Amino acid sequence: MPDIGFPAGALARCRRLLEPAMRATVADLHPWTERMAAFTLGWSDIDGTPVEADTGKGLRPALAMLCAEAAGGSFESALPGAVAVELVHVFSLVHDDIIDSDERRRHRPAVWKAYGVGPAVLAGDALLALAVRSAASGPHAAAAASLLSSALVELVHGQTLDMAFEERPWTGPEAVTVAEYTSMAADKTGSLIGCAAALGVTFAGAPAGLATRMYGMGRDLGLAFQMVDDVLGIWGDPARTGKPVFGDLRRRKKTLPVLAALAPSGPRSSGSAGTSASRELALLLSSGAEDEDAVRLAADLIEKEGGRDRALSMAADHASRALDTLDAAFPEARDLRALITSLLDRTH
Amino acid sequence: MPDIGFPAGALARCRRLLEPAMRATVADLHPWTERMAAFTLGWSDIDGTPVEADTGKGLRPALAMLCAEAAGGSFESALPGAVAVELVHVFSLVHDDIIDSDERRRHRPAVWKAYGVGPAVLAGDALLALAVRSAASGPHAAAAASLLSSALVELVHGQTLDMAFEERPWTGPEAVTVAEYTSMAADKTGSLIGCAAALGVTFAGAPAGLATRMYGMGRDLGLAFQMVDDVLGIWGDPARTGKPVFGDLRRRKKTLPVLAALAPSGPRSSGSAGTSASRELALLLSSGAEDEDAVRLAADLIEKEGGRDRALSMAADHASRALDTLDAAFPEARDLRALITSLLDRTH
Repeated sequence: MPDIGFPAGALARCRRLLEPAMRATVADLHPWTERMAAFTLGWSDIDGTPVEADTGKGLRPALAMLCAEAAGGSFESALPGAVAVELVHVFSLVHDDIIDSDERRRHRPAVWKAYGVGPAVLAGDALLALAVRSAASGPHAAAAASLLSSALVELVHGQTLDMAFEERPWTGPEAVTVAEYTSMAADKTGSLIGCAAALGVTFAGAPAGLATRMYGMGRDLGLAFQMVDDVLGIWGDPARTGKPVFGDLRRRKKTLPVLAALAPSGPRSSGSAGTSASRELALLLSSGAEDEDAVRLAADLIEKEGGRDRALSMAADHASRALDTLDAAFPEARDLRALITSLLDRTH
Repeated sequence: MPDIGFPAGALARCRRLLEPAMRATVADLHPWTERMAAFTLGWSDIDGTPVEADTGKGLRPALAMLCAEAAGGSFESALPGAVAVELVHVFSLVHDDIIDSDERRRHRPAVWKAYGVGPAVLAGDALLALAVRSAASGPHAAAAASLLSSALVELVHGQTLDMAFEERPWTGPEAVTVAEYTSMAADKTGSLIGCAAALGVTFAGAPAGLATRMYGMGRDLGLAFQMVDDVLGIWGDPARTGKPVFGDLRRRKKTLPVLAALAPSGPRSSGSAGTSASRELALLLSSGAEDEDAVRLAADLIEKEGGRDRALSMAADHASRALDTLDAAFPEARDLRALITSLLDRTH
């Protein structure tokens, strides 16, 4: 399926509907929190001056709307769900940057860096409150609130696992396994993307069984998305990702390419002691060296150990599982399929 | 109505039901967040050792259960709502202490002080996620999720107003008025207490009209409660409140007794320039003096200007309005009435 043109078309359609609804929702906030929200959403500068900043990909709301359409509803019918998942996503970014002490986001200062930690905590809480209220409005409130709150519990669980991984060693019996990583990413990234898809069909009036299947589809899609993100976090172009080159390596994040390279079950290693390259990588990561040469060498060793390939191959597996579920449920949903394949094209 | 015996009876009944439900809910968290939650809820020490600490008054869940009973339901029927409001309350305390940089809570370190800011942000988020999931479960999910999320939006709005008040001057046209204070307190404290009462009758199957009246009743009760709290924050016994003596004055919080003492419309002042005592108070507060003599003098001036009396009289007005609404809806609800009057007895 040709990628060109699609996201510009369907994503633009989603955005035209979504943005006024988002603005109307955020307008209920106190002017102070509203300013922080507008900055976070890329609508204005730190001081409130309107700008055209990067507003993010809008994947989750687009998924909700396209799933509603696929299930026989309209884009509009899914708006409360689309607004809810986008607000939860933005809430999680605002709080995540505090938790991880990340100072930059999408080429701009993080909210806590721009306005202070206390106000940023409050801004995140305000966005989350609006998200829940949006999901709990309208004719499918009970199912929507249940889906959103379950996804929220999983999302926070995933963030906690991610944080707990930082305390674990790189090698040995206490090391984080690829399976543990997958479970963390399914919670942290998969749950909300799954929720977006499930909310979409729910607001279109689909039965709970279809919502459950779409939740699983979105969860696989989210896993694929996160795995690709991990690859981009090491080898991506900083101008496109908005993140520093080798940033995740410098911060010693336990991302999939690193864990896959260190895993005894990795495709190119044999035996529990690992190859000499994987031993060198583990030593390098444990040393705490943050200079350009050290992180570049680490990236090379990860690639040599097959970490990059394995991450991309796992991403492809989850993506094709998501597409299989989608095709079984909605064989005619071309726009939805195109959105999903375009997301995975980020690997190239 | 005699106060003795009641809370020990009905509150203990609520707690016996509530605590196992709270423990079962919190058990779904990651062990790390669960430990922070258990500390926050007074079940364990910082390192996880079980203790019998102050678990809070449990006002909100008790109100939900007693309202359910008054509306013809059982205590048990209101449990998802009771758990939800208690979790939202605890979430707000955890995040509030970060926002206000408060280092102590209920005679113990604040969560952020004990575990760090990032983990405390996450612990609050986890409690909030569980709260929403609890409200969104069971047969009245749509109404409950809608009530809870509306209260959440108001609560965060009230916290934001409270924070914004700190930037405002003590006197002049930009000063915070008593009316603005009342609106802030209605959002910050009234909304969740109103929500507790409304959820109670909702889970008992009462129509939306009754839930709305109970929301108004709880909002008045919450206002009375907050106004009494403001008085205790200045003149309360630190051994009972768990807060330092004159703490709110030392932190220059814009609480009701201070605002009422400074207000041109205050009962003992005349003309916009105020009395000499109110001018002395304004100067003292603006000076930033934090020593014992300065805050004691400020407290005396507030009392002399009628700030304490006016706060207590406003609290009594809201309390009697709450009781009128209650009596009109549930003339036979003796336990519920006793809970409410016992709360207001804190003034003596």
